[in-house]
Amino acid sequence: MNACDESVAAATERTRTVRPPPPLAAGAPQQPPAEGGSLERSSLDYWLLSKLRSLLGNPPVEFAVRSGTRVGPASATAVARVTFASRATLTSILADPWMRFGDAYGDGRVTIEGDLVSLLETVYQASDMGGERRVSLLRRAADVLRRRHRNSLARSRDNIHHHYDIGNDFYALWLDRSMVYTCAYYPTPAATLDEAQFAKMDHVCRKLRLNAGESVVEAGCGWGTLALHMARHYGVRVRAFNISHQQIVYARERAAREGLGARVEYVEDDYRNITGHYDAFVSVGMLEHVGLANYPALGRVAHRCLGGRGRGLIHSIGRNRPATLQPWIEKRIFPGAYPPSLGEMTRIFEPWNLSILDVENLRLHYAQTLRHWLARYEAASERVREMFDERFVRMWRLYLAGSVAAFTTGTMQLFQVLFAPGENNDIAWTRAHLYTR
Amino acid sequence: MNACDESVAAATERTRTVRPPPPLAAGAPQQPPAEGGSLERSSLDYWLLSKLRSLLGNPPVEFAVRSGTRVGPASATAVARVTFASRATLTSILADPWMRFGDAYGDGRVTIEGDLVSLLETVYQASDMGGERRVSLLRRAADVLRRRHRNSLARSRDNIHHHYDIGNDFYALWLDRSMVYTCAYYPTPAATLDEAQFAKMDHVCRKLRLNAGESVVEAGCGWGTLALHMARHYGVRVRAFNISHQQIVYARERAAREGLGARVEYVEDDYRNITGHYDAFVSVGMLEHVGLANYPALGRVAHRCLGGRGRGLIHSIGRNRPATLQPWIEKRIFPGAYPPSLGEMTRIFEPWNLSILDVENLRLHYAQTLRHWLARYEAASERVREMFDERFVRMWRLYLAGSVAAFTTGTMQLFQVLFAPGENNDIAWTRAHLYTR
Repeated sequence: MNACDESVAAATERTRTVRPPPPLAAGAPQQPPAEGGSLERSSLDYWLLSKLRSLLGNPPVEFAVRSGTRVGPASATAVARVTFASRATLTSILADPWMRFGDAYGDGRVTIEGDLVSLLETVYQASDMGGERRVSLLRRAADVLRRRHRNSLARSRDNIHHHYDIGNDFYALWLDRSMVYTCAYYPTPAATLDEAQFAKMDHVCRKLRLNAGESVVEAGCGWGTLALHMARHYGVRVRAFNISHQQIVYARERAAREGLGARVEYVEDDYRNITGHYDAFVSVGMLEHVGLANYPALGRVAHRCLGGRGRGLIHSIGRNRPATLQPWIEKRIFPGAYPPSLGEMTRIFEPWNLSILDVENLRLHYAQTLRHWLARYEAASERVREMFDERFVRMWRLYLAGSVAAFTTGTMQLFQVLFAPGENNDIAWTRAHLYTR
Repeated sequence: MNACDESVAAATERTRTVRPPPPLAAGAPQQPPAEGGSLERSSLDYWLLSKLRSLLGNPPVEFAVRSGTRVGPASATAVARVTFASRATLTSILADPWMRFGDAYGDGRVTIEGDLVSLLETVYQASDMGGERRVSLLRRAADVLRRRHRNSLARSRDNIHHHYDIGNDFYALWLDRSMVYTCAYYPTPAATLDEAQFAKMDHVCRKLRLNAGESVVEAGCGWGTLALHMARHYGVRVRAFNISHQQIVYARERAAREGLGARVEYVEDDYRNITGHYDAFVSVGMLEHVGLANYPALGRVAHRCLGGRGRGLIHSIGRNRPATLQPWIEKRIFPGAYPPSLGEMTRIFEPWNLSILDVENLRLHYAQTLRHWLARYEAASERVREMFDERFVRMWRLYLAGSVAAFTTGTMQLFQVLFAPGENNDIAWTRAHLYTR
């Protein structure tokens, strides 16, 4: 949120007739107004803070206005304390908490004492208890957002540019050594991030049962790491597509440097323009940007590429049931993104008689991956501040911490879906081969 | 089909104006009418046979009328030869092949030389090439069938009685020693049926991570084998529900005989009447009989039983995309049955925020299971004939052989879906524990 938004919020506050109820009204927490400021002023703040806390499902979190008023459990038992710089900030957030909290946190108008991840987990858990109604509201909001960010070829390019072209140097600060920006696979929770990203790529290759000499097409290849892994460790040829210019440039330089340029071709183009036949189709962390309306088109590409044989794998953030992405994340971090439910994902496969062979939900692995990223990000925050500014540092901290919380609380899922053309009987007999070294 | 149906078919033939085109008309196979019978008579049969063969996608199968006319490849290259007893039979089948072929085969009005499974696989493959249109027609047909067999409590009881109360002695002739009538799990294709059914139950228990002292509820327990396995090998207490009276009686006697009566309770009641809280919910091979409209109700039962913790598993025949069950199977063998697509299965889980953790498609294991059943059934066919009659022997042979073909051609799938309440973090870190002995 910028200065302009703040004044809009203040105006909103002025034009609203917020009638403070008496302190200790029914439903308000049993805590007297704090000292400092007149009773009228503090009781209004108190009412607003209580309102916000109640809206979030009364999590065990202390909420305060910088001038002194507080609600919630005593600091000793609260998971964290959230302090709003002013009543204007608080009022603005009350009007649209899921959007404006993030902006205010980014600007420093909201400060947090205590562990950010624990705070967000607590809020996710408490507000999830609200149950069904909120979800259906979110579904409608999701429809609006999806319309706005309809992923046409041109719009996809803009959306992807927004997130992935921030700068390779920035991502290099906190991703693993090999630059993989998707959920890792931890054979044990003690694995390092580097080990887990390597293990994830291997897990994907084993699921696809790649054989030397085969051809693979990759839809959405990030900085090209998986393609190189496949070529180096499984002896396959890979054509890898991406519409992020910076990522493609990085990937090409790397393939040349690592002597794999002859076996890996990076194509700066949209997945919809993929042509040719391949033994395997793979897409890791792209589906979130495809948009529901394009799922059958993605399935058509996979179907056409495989031509009745071969195997495919799609790895994507998902949901237990349809719901929009947290709107602040959708607006500020990932425009056009939408994590689907598994039911929604089947729209990729069903029209083309693609057979789902194996689905693995790795949500706790994504929480673990994000904990590693967040720790590395915090360690590099000075450098991020130099590259961007304090607001950017805070926004991305909130995004990473919120993502940890989304996966630990089961708000988000991570689905790896292995599939094959319906008529293909050359499929693994069991999954034991994934677990033997 | 009985004699009455046959005369209906003959009447249909008489009232239709079937105008035979000249031999070798456009589209007809390049083969002269066979000898025997007048030219007019044989050319009409020839046209009807060609029509049927074309309707089935021109499989490499020879079709013949007993009086002599034949179409299709020469016997040496054909997968099998299908002979119709009369033109009346052929005409009747042409009007509704997916329903009447089965009846005519059962009555002996259709005979088959060559391997029945190979023939059916060939027909499934050829007719699948028809593609999209047929599926949408089937979808409409499925809606009609589902309405007819709406699975109310009373209707479910009738439907289940039709199939499962034929007689325990009958099933004992060809199922494995432990009487399991669902897809087995073959650690290797060479495993015996007994080994594979044991391995399947173990696979399910491992997926559910059962611990001694825990409680399990089973929805649809067959002859009670899985419940006994869980109690004996995992030390859990099981309440197992089934509405097939014969199966429940059998299961109770067996639990008492095997000294497990104190740990396994068999309840003759519908899954919708399950009450109580449990550590695990399991349902193997019941979903096929639940009906789409009841999926959210089934999910509610699982959700209520688990109460925010624990694990669940549903094992069911499925589809790559929505389609009706083969209508002859639905009418003669499994009234009210409907194998869902995975997308349709998600209707069980999404309303209750149940998180899908793992999906495994075991369709080739079901083909293997059915091959074992078919071989044992053929070996016991004399005994089956004594218990029932020749028509019954042929109908069940067709059902078993057709089911092998459905799974080998990818027309049917077998999904094992592991799930847990969305907020439950006590889930397996990886699936490696399923593959270590």
